[in-house]
Amino acid sequence: MASDRPSFPTRRAQAERNRAKILDAARSAFAGEGSEVSMAEISRRAGVGMATLYRNFPGRRELLEALYIDEIDALCDAARTIEGDTPRAAFITWLRLVLAFVPNKRAIVSELLEHTDHDDPLLHDNRARALDAGRPLLSAAQQANQIREDLNFDQIVQMINAIAKIAADPDYLEPMFQTLLDGLHPPETQKSAS
Amino acid sequence: MASDRPSFPTRRAQAERNRAKILDAARSAFAGEGSEVSMAEISRRAGVGMATLYRNFPGRRELLEALYIDEIDALCDAARTIEGDTPRAAFITWLRLVLAFVPNKRAIVSELLEHTDHDDPLLHDNRARALDAGRPLLSAAQQANQIREDLNFDQIVQMINAIAKIAADPDYLEPMFQTLLDGLHPPETQKSAS
Repeated sequence: MASDRPSFPTRRAQAERNRAKILDAARSAFAGEGSEVSMAEISRRAGVGMATLYRNFPGRRELLEALYIDEIDALCDAARTIEGDTPRAAFITWLRLVLAFVPNKRAIVSELLEHTDHDDPLLHDNRARALDAGRPLLSAAQQANQIREDLNFDQIVQMINAIAKIAADPDYLEPMFQTLLDGLHPPETQKSAS
Repeated sequence: MASDRPSFPTRRAQAERNRAKILDAARSAFAGEGSEVSMAEISRRAGVGMATLYRNFPGRRELLEALYIDEIDALCDAARTIEGDTPRAAFITWLRLVLAFVPNKRAIVSELLEHTDHDDPLLHDNRARALDAGRPLLSAAQQANQIREDLNFDQIVQMINAIAKIAADPDYLEPMFQTLLDGLHPPETQKSAS
């Protein structure tokens, strides 16, 4: 038994590496090809066998949930660690991460919704977690009078989501996002009201 | 026969008045209650009998189509006659009419789509007609350097539509529209790029 002990951490490290490889492969596969991707394709891309894939994620749903939670974790971490020259710049940088997340989220969430609904605690709680992480960034930018105050955090995120849902290339959407971000300046710093 | 002649224009005028009354009643009923409104309720609100209603519009679909075309006509007329202190003000005023049209359109189009699809010439051609009417207003405002030039007309309308589709009260949506409209200023007139 004693001789087995050193291999425990190694096996565990190996298992964690496999899990990370599967999630990375699944993330890029879903981002590139949407929900068409099969479990076999994910296993191939990750370079792990189907048995390893299913030991980590008994089904597509478990894999999708793990991916979703992973992306939300990344948004929360970013909100805590992000740096910008100004409070506005930090908030805008975080909004850009939210924007980059939307195409991934779309494929993942649309398939998750086949198994669940919008009120499912998984979606609801994780969405709330990401939004709560970003709120202080907006508050700081509004207190510094660098973002207009007639919009709250939810309204800004809803605008981002509404535009991100338009079916078009990122290049086509980019000036639309920039227009929104420019519109977030406090009105008194803009040329005219109209 | 001769004695009947004077009554022809009168009957025709009466028929036109009835048609207008039905369309007005249907417009406000759809705007207020969405697609739940029955033909009987529209007949009651218009103050015309069911026979008159069905003589003008043999079915719901014909009534919805007429309503839709009527609203598009109004947007086209406005684009030709609108006046503003500046080209930007004229364009913004027209966009505000498009915004006001969206809630009506939503109820009408969503029911029309039960009978047809997005590529139906009725929807496609009328949508194109309204957009073509508004394009010169944007061109004039861009030429006067009063609206940013990295967005085209379709992108602006898609942003308006994307936000208008958010399920919320007009008061909640209003600052979101204002943010979009403020963002349409040319970037060099705004405080900073970011």
